Amino acid sequence: MDVSKAAQSLSGSSAGALKAGSMLHLIEGGADALAALSGLIADAEAGKHSHAIVASNASLRAPIPTPRKNVFCVGRNYAEHIAEGNRAQKQNIGVTEHPVFFTKPPTSIVPPDGHVLIFPTVSESTDYEVELAVIIGSAGRNIPKASAMDHVFGYTILNDITARDVQRRHGGQYFKGKGFDGSCPLGPWIETADAIPDPHALSIGLKVNGEQRQDGNTADMIFDIPTLISSLSEGMTLEPGDIIATGTPSGVGYAMEPPRFLKDGDTVVCEIQGIGTLSNNVRAI
Amino acid sequence: MDVSKAAQSLSGSSAGALKAGSMLHLIEGGADALAALSGLIADAEAGKHSHAIVASNASLRAPIPTPRKNVFCVGRNYAEHIAEGNRAQKQNIGVTEHPVFFTKPPTSIVPPDGHVLIFPTVSESTDYEVELAVIIGSAGRNIPKASAMDHVFGYTILNDITARDVQRRHGGQYFKGKGFDGSCPLGPWIETADAIPDPHALSIGLKVNGEQRQDGNTADMIFDIPTLISSLSEGMTLEPGDIIATGTPSGVGYAMEPPRFLKDGDTVVCEIQGIGTLSNNVRAI
Repeated sequence: MDVSKAAQSLSGSSAGALKAGSMLHLIEGGADALAALSGLIADAEAGKHSHAIVASNASLRAPIPTPRKNVFCVGRNYAEHIAEGNRAQKQNIGVTEHPVFFTKPPTSIVPPDGHVLIFPTVSESTDYEVELAVIIGSAGRNIPKASAMDHVFGYTILNDITARDVQRRHGGQYFKGKGFDGSCPLGPWIETADAIPDPHALSIGLKVNGEQRQDGNTADMIFDIPTLISSLSEGMTLEPGDIIATGTPSGVGYAMEPPRFLKDGDTVVCEIQGIGTLSNNVRAI
Repeated sequence: MDVSKAAQSLSGSSAGALKAGSMLHLIEGGADALAALSGLIADAEAGKHSHAIVASNASLRAPIPTPRKNVFCVGRNYAEHIAEGNRAQKQNIGVTEHPVFFTKPPTSIVPPDGHVLIFPTVSESTDYEVELAVIIGSAGRNIPKASAMDHVFGYTILNDITARDVQRRHGGQYFKGKGFDGSCPLGPWIETADAIPDPHALSIGLKVNGEQRQDGNTADMIFDIPTLISSLSEGMTLEPGDIIATGTPSGVGYAMEPPRFLKDGDTVVCEIQGIGTLSNNVRAI
């Protein structure tokens, strides 16, 4: 079920039984809220709701426009991406024993068709990274791998836009280079977990101006989703609506020879099988 | 002005003119809201408000119990702390050209007298770090150093509790070892900027079970507050209520010989001149 599309079309309408003022409320509402939404969608499809809007006639917001905390991100989670990074930086760093976690602030989020921003006075090397994003549905701490998938509400697409030079010049901590305004396109909607029976078998790709740059499969994650949820939740409570970006496959711009970074006017399209496409234009400001 | 103490005592009372349901609303209200609060405090002190509560009779919450995003933190911002880290880890890392930024999630925040949590199954080396925290008052992006202090609402104390082993085992990114529940004592209140004319001349210290472990001065920051605000806001919008922890002086437990980590039952007291003390007990769970 495309709940973002559905919830957005219902937002502000007479969806009384649902009382979902926002996606975060819907997620917190759990199975009952989802069932109510399914009913409303069925009614709308049967023509019973005059307020229903056809998604193709709407401008979509990000499915969670303002998360309650930073987006959790995972670095170095596809072997080919690690290998291309080693080649580009003339280093030889292997797979880490534990996942590499960092964050992006809520101010970085961009809706479908919104602008990715580049700041030429701050960075000369803005890059893209298509990623499968997991949306947490129910809270938990010290979540075992075996039950981790029970905490997943759904999935969406996230583009982890990164200023490579800035990422490296702040003592090795990724945050500053990953945190710019306009650096986190998110969408186009959330597919609920039931609609993605196997999130570890999805083609995942990215095009810049129509040219295929990334072309991978989520089967190639080093740390799978249960492992990421289990590791991240060690001693730290995950909450409904939390977003976990699961890392990017190979094909990023900085590892090309020569490197090719994003520039004003570029169009970046992310696509993940079973979810859809997330398209954004780049604007230098 | 101790606005947290004042706002908390007024919260839920008939502070009609202020309409400050939370500290975040108060901060967003700007100068007008602060002036209204000052008036209410004066009235309360004159005995005109029956709802006013004497702070010593109240349990204080964290001044911002649930920030709208992760807390911004700065690593390696005091020379003696860098030196002790080099000694302890047998390395020789100098001052970085740019500040080292990372974050702590909202779920990590603990009120005054709340419990610092340690998770023996996850970490064997939980450590303390007293820090001056800056509260942002007005939004801005690409804020110049010259006007950075105009964006400061006030100051409080933050204890950047850190699981040292976890900090190091996730590919070098600090987030996971800094993000545990109960790892961010905050308080006891916010002193407004006008009450701290020079935040770069404050004694800053920390005691464990009465023993002085950290004893520094904010004059020794490598990157001062205007530099931190300017650097952090490059390409990234700061918002009212954002929290920036400015780094810790020397004296942390892992750099002692032998290292001494926090344990169940310890009492940790942070003190910063002009603000007050922040006391927390440690509980292993």
